[in-house]
Amino acid sequence: MPVAVAATLLLAGPVGAADDAPAPERPRARDAGVVIGVREPGPRNAIIDVPGVAVGHATVVEGDGLRTGVTAILPHGGDLYRERVPAAIVVGNGYGKLLGVTQVQELGELETPVLLTGTLGVWRTADALVEWQLARPGMEDVRSLNPVVGETNDGYLNDIRARAITPAHVREALESASPGNVDEGAVGAGTGTVAFGWKGGIGTSSRRLPASEGGHTVGVLVQSNFGGRLTIRGVPLDDLRPEALALAAGNRELPPDSGDGSIMIVVATDAPLDARLLRRLAARALLGMGRTGGDMSNGSGDYVIAFSTAPSMRRIQGDPPQPAAVLANDAMTPLFEAAAEATEEAIVNSMFRAETVHGHRGTVRALPLEGVLPMVVPER
Amino acid sequence: MPVAVAATLLLAGPVGAADDAPAPERPRARDAGVVIGVREPGPRNAIIDVPGVAVGHATVVEGDGLRTGVTAILPHGGDLYRERVPAAIVVGNGYGKLLGVTQVQELGELETPVLLTGTLGVWRTADALVEWQLARPGMEDVRSLNPVVGETNDGYLNDIRARAITPAHVREALESASPGNVDEGAVGAGTGTVAFGWKGGIGTSSRRLPASEGGHTVGVLVQSNFGGRLTIRGVPLDDLRPEALALAAGNRELPPDSGDGSIMIVVATDAPLDARLLRRLAARALLGMGRTGGDMSNGSGDYVIAFSTAPSMRRIQGDPPQPAAVLANDAMTPLFEAAAEATEEAIVNSMFRAETVHGHRGTVRALPLEGVLPMVVPER
Amino acid sequence: MPVAVAATLLLAGPVGAADDAPAPERPRARDAGVVIGVREPGPRNAIIDVPGVAVGHATVVEGDGLRTGVTAILPHGGDLYRERVPAAIVVGNGYGKLLGVTQVQELGELETPVLLTGTLGVWRTADALVEWQLARPGMEDVRSLNPVVGETNDGYLNDIRARAITPAHVREALESASPGNVDEGAVGAGTGTVAFGWKGGIGTSSRRLPASEGGHTVGVLVQSNFGGRLTIRGVPLDDLRPEALALAAGNRELPPDSGDGSIMIVVATDAPLDARLLRRLAARALLGMGRTGGDMSNGSGDYVIAFSTAPSMRRIQGDPPQPAAVLANDAMTPLFEAAAEATEEAIVNSMFRAETVHGHRGTVRALPLEGVLPMVVPER
Amino acid sequence: MPVAVAATLLLAGPVGAADDAPAPERPRARDAGVVIGVREPGPRNAIIDVPGVAVGHATVVEGDGLRTGVTAILPHGGDLYRERVPAAIVVGNGYGKLLGVTQVQELGELETPVLLTGTLGVWRTADALVEWQLARPGMEDVRSLNPVVGETNDGYLNDIRARAITPAHVREALESASPGNVDEGAVGAGTGTVAFGWKGGIGTSSRRLPASEGGHTVGVLVQSNFGGRLTIRGVPLDDLRPEALALAAGNRELPPDSGDGSIMIVVATDAPLDARLLRRLAARALLGMGRTGGDMSNGSGDYVIAFSTAPSMRRIQGDPPQPAAVLANDAMTPLFEAAAEATEEAIVNSMFRAETVHGHRGTVRALPLEGVLPMVVPER
Repeated sequence: MPVAVAATLLLAGPVGAADDAPAPERPRARDAGVVIGVREPGPRNAIIDVPGVAVGHATVVEGDGLRTGVTAILPHGGDLYRERVPAAIVVGNGYGKLLGVTQVQELGELETPVLLTGTLGVWRTADALVEWQLARPGMEDVRSLNPVVGETNDGYLNDIRARAITPAHVREALESASPGNVDEGAVGAGTGTVAFGWKGGIGTSSRRLPASEGGHTVGVLVQSNFGGRLTIRGVPLDDLRPEALALAAGNRELPPDSGDGSIMIVVATDAPLDARLLRRLAARALLGMGRTGGDMSNGSGDYVIAFSTAPSMRRIQGDPPQPAAVLANDAMTPLFEAAAEATEEAIVNSMFRAETVHGHRGTVRALPLEGVLPMVVPER
Repeated sequence: MPVAVAATLLLAGPVGAADDAPAPERPRARDAGVVIGVREPGPRNAIIDVPGVAVGHATVVEGDGLRTGVTAILPHGGDLYRERVPAAIVVGNGYGKLLGVTQVQELGELETPVLLTGTLGVWRTADALVEWQLARPGMEDVRSLNPVVGETNDGYLNDIRARAITPAHVREALESASPGNVDEGAVGAGTGTVAFGWKGGIGTSSRRLPASEGGHTVGVLVQSNFGGRLTIRGVPLDDLRPEALALAAGNRELPPDSGDGSIMIVVATDAPLDARLLRRLAARALLGMGRTGGDMSNGSGDYVIAFSTAPSMRRIQGDPPQPAAVLANDAMTPLFEAAAEATEEAIVNSMFRAETVHGHRGTVRALPLEGVLPMVVPER
Repeated sequence: MPVAVAATLLLAGPVGAADDAPAPERPRARDAGVVIGVREPGPRNAIIDVPGVAVGHATVVEGDGLRTGVTAILPHGGDLYRERVPAAIVVGNGYGKLLGVTQVQELGELETPVLLTGTLGVWRTADALVEWQLARPGMEDVRSLNPVVGETNDGYLNDIRARAITPAHVREALESASPGNVDEGAVGAGTGTVAFGWKGGIGTSSRRLPASEGGHTVGVLVQSNFGGRLTIRGVPLDDLRPEALALAAGNRELPPDSGDGSIMIVVATDAPLDARLLRRLAARALLGMGRTGGDMSNGSGDYVIAFSTAPSMRRIQGDPPQPAAVLANDAMTPLFEAAAEATEEAIVNSMFRAETVHGHRGTVRALPLEGVLPMVVPER
Repeated sequence: MPVAVAATLLLAGPVGAADDAPAPERPRARDAGVVIGVREPGPRNAIIDVPGVAVGHATVVEGDGLRTGVTAILPHGGDLYRERVPAAIVVGNGYGKLLGVTQVQELGELETPVLLTGTLGVWRTADALVEWQLARPGMEDVRSLNPVVGETNDGYLNDIRARAITPAHVREALESASPGNVDEGAVGAGTGTVAFGWKGGIGTSSRRLPASEGGHTVGVLVQSNFGGRLTIRGVPLDDLRPEALALAAGNRELPPDSGDGSIMIVVATDAPLDARLLRRLAARALLGMGRTGGDMSNGSGDYVIAFSTAPSMRRIQGDPPQPAAVLANDAMTPLFEAAAEATEEAIVNSMFRAETVHGHRGTVRALPLEGVLPMVVPER
């Protein structure tokens, strides 16, 4: 890609620039012809294809230095504390602060929404989530709650030590959550993240199994902030990296391309899986991450949170356990493939949709699609 | 024990009573003749027998309902972020909110003090610890920190939903930490806890190996808030339980004796152990807990955090790794026995030293030593 | 039991002595007045109180040096490969050769009986189990099998390097398995084991929950071969140890009292537990082991294998998964207590029932009940 | 390689055919222009680039139906029991029978060679390894040994139920082990394996870090027997699959392309890593596997065994622990990348080097290089 093209992209009004003109919409990967994997996506190719799942964002862009936010993923629209969903967490590389891990692993369930944010805001975010949830009707006598809150480090674009997240941001993410739409790119918890030296952020994708394989849906949402050797549809895009560095030369500091970021991956499914099967499912998401070139570098916090929304698997507090047919081990392989594919595509979407962002310590460019697309789309 | 004796104890001014007369000092177990195990304690029979370890408390007793606090354990007196100590975490039963787990498990190190508090205060406590530590000299460029903060649920004696812990309490616990003394009983994070239906709290103990076994010290500190069938020196003390219930009959609600509390166990040693050996050591602390009658009930969050203070094992950030001789696997057994014994005694100390506390939802009596001692001290 | 009877026991000819007179039967712990815990045993106080469970032994006592064997535990009487049971394995200390672990942990199920034997025979035993099971009707097309075979090291009494176990022994244990009886002491895989310096072996116990707590049964079988500081009903029995050493003074080598043995614990239940809940249940068995004085010493292989026989939880290969109501997390505590109590009692039974054995490198005495009983039975 | 040569390869007589003419040598991937990753291999691009590592094979090709074998990997040429190496095992998907796992995880060390074989031979192989090692000089008093033996299921090409492996095969693999050469393809434990519907087998590769990153070597050896969607250098090769099926049309049964095979991955390094860091390293090998299209399908046993040959990390039994500088966490990333790249290339090598094999239930074709190379080599 000629530098001139990249410069044009740069002019296309990044988030956080005072004089932004409206940016032309950047496409999702599949809309640009980048088909990842062989399985079919759900109708919206998003985590919200799993019935009941809702996603909300609070995006914090203030002044020159605050580029952060909160993203909320709600497994269903009911009372999450009373109607718990089976869940599992898998740790790819544990350099991260994900809160709530051991209780999910022990009890095999979620009792709160899942929130994502920036590293140094994770505890305040959890605290605000607890405050919010304890104030809901019917929670008056609850004295324990296990918020699940993950993070990646947005400390290049964001003045992370300012610790800008407030309870209002958390409420905004939770209360704006919608089962009808998921914004991607530099929004919510993805506002300030960086992936492979380019702007990362929130991305999502889904796969729907054919009826012959059960007909279930697997949806994935990622907060991409990691590194390695960017690879899209198997094509290494190393040649683009020097250009990125050149573009960044005017910055106070080079963009973080050491790979020492992180990724949070949330996997939802309506397949009737218990915690053990969800753990197995979650492990496959990491394979999808690896296919984008991620190496789980030392400083990367690579986590997967998986849950099932199947009504039969709900654990209604106070009711006796209901009989439910859990999927057999040998029915899992199509779901495994779906989780890997959807994770790979969600990561690519997070970069395709993210625009250039100026921030605290410099600028991180959007992935230059003009250069990328000819490399990764067949016969283009 | 006659009820009259218990009544006397009751009159002995519990914490939180407005008209307290000074309470006669309750003895530690060993001072009362209750010798647990066969190994020798260190000089103070406390976690601070491990050189460098310091402990501080902030005790929150306000009005009728606030009975909570923070306890800080510092592995050494230096810069914990720059001079990290190897560490491990073992989960007995993961019904708890312990923060910082996955990074400790991945990197095998602590980079902050360990804090303990009540359940619903754990995120604020972590946030305040981060605030405090990021403000220390030399931390100006640090953009990531992994606070390790544990909790047990003090929601019977404490108005836990009031969420009373503030950053000032956290600073108080950290800045009052001393290598010279550890208060036990209803102090710090133990202010509002309950163990086996009696008042629990903070307890500590240590063991020093003979020179022939390496001469190392193992120190343990617990925050006891769990249940089961109280057993001291192998003697089940069930017969005392009805009395406890009777004494409590005037309360709004019976004390929580369902066992669904929790215990945090911190194990320190100066033996040169790496993270793998510390994990092994930590697992043995749970055996000591089991010997007091704990069953790791469903709702109990039973965690062990172990670290080594051996100077040779420090990981000085920015310096190349230094050669160090890690202890051999087959030298571990005496340390294992020490960890189990010291945990058992620390739990008993937490109850021996804790006085009766009136609080939010009732009163929890101190363990009635007049009744207990004849049962558990030989030839008394 | 009168002390006079116990004294007679001590004089009784041990297994393996050429001139044995029939030994008077040694009592089980509860029959001798040693009541462990507060929960009620099942009718036979044995793992076979769990409906369907069968146990068989092959005892190898040949010449002066072979003292070993095989013990088989069958979860039900049907085709274990076609009708799999949910299962979990917990590792207390992993110094052992337990075969089949990772597949049980991944798939959460058993597809073979569980076998126990001596350390250096574990692979042959597994191979013979595979041979036996593949030859059963309906197995003609099976090309993979995951035998679960555990071991402890009987290398003091047994000439372990002779590797005496043959396929015939394995078949004998499997084909003699009975749901009606479990021999204890120096039989099967317990023929040559040593516990706390005394003769250990096979022991079993059970607990049946009251209907108000679900009415389920937990049964435990142990192969005791470990050490520490023997404690029965909370009473440390250290004073007996010198006697053991004196008795052993004529031996070529002192009995192994270093604690570096091992214990295999098998936990069965008819409660409808999935693999996750079985893992939780198994972890509590280790607490019961700890109460007998075990420390999980460095060289000890301490393992728990737990399975559920509940018909609703069977995984019938080839059939679609059936709906089943899995027990709720918060119904687990009584089962946890049952597992800990039954494990403790099973260990004590293994020693109460085991007679003195002369073997390869010396003699290991039976626990001298005449000395023990006055110490551990109240009001004697 | 010219396409003409590849076409010749396709015609070449497969292993196991009675009338084989000598096959022209199939190239390794890199020799055919297929460069995987960006890091440099060691001089032989093999696990034996790690100093001291030796590899040996016993290949069993008998009659129409026996196509199996044993592969031995020795960490160094000395006494492996006395001079143990730190080691770790990571389980990608635990549908497998890998023996020795829990002791490696507990003690963090290997005390035997690592052997690979077919599924139903794993116990006999372990038994023979024990026999062999116990008979070595200085082992007279050893009564416990933890053989590490892995497997994949070669039951399509091999009459697996015949269970053909004998102690002689095990000795052959061990005693032929050489630090100077590693045969690849349909040899040793790879004789009868199938990968992605094509002939798999043994493959190896290595990476050497530049001095600026420590200069250490990472070597990988795989036994490929798994499935998914074959991808080489990022190029999905689905289009080749129908050809495979057509070629197989004359067989009694189609080749197993369901993905329900397995992969054993052995990672060696001379970097001074302890067991914790080796576990981290091993986890990255799975990313390399994922990049070849593996999905860790339900029935796949995907395991990584990693060890360090660094002399400073040896654990000499009987000697006091020696001081050693373990690599810092933040020096691991280049090693992580090396492990992922070398695993990916080792898998591709296993398929490039494997020739067509006729066996028990049919024929499995070699990967048709004449079709593959134009797709995966740039500018061909």
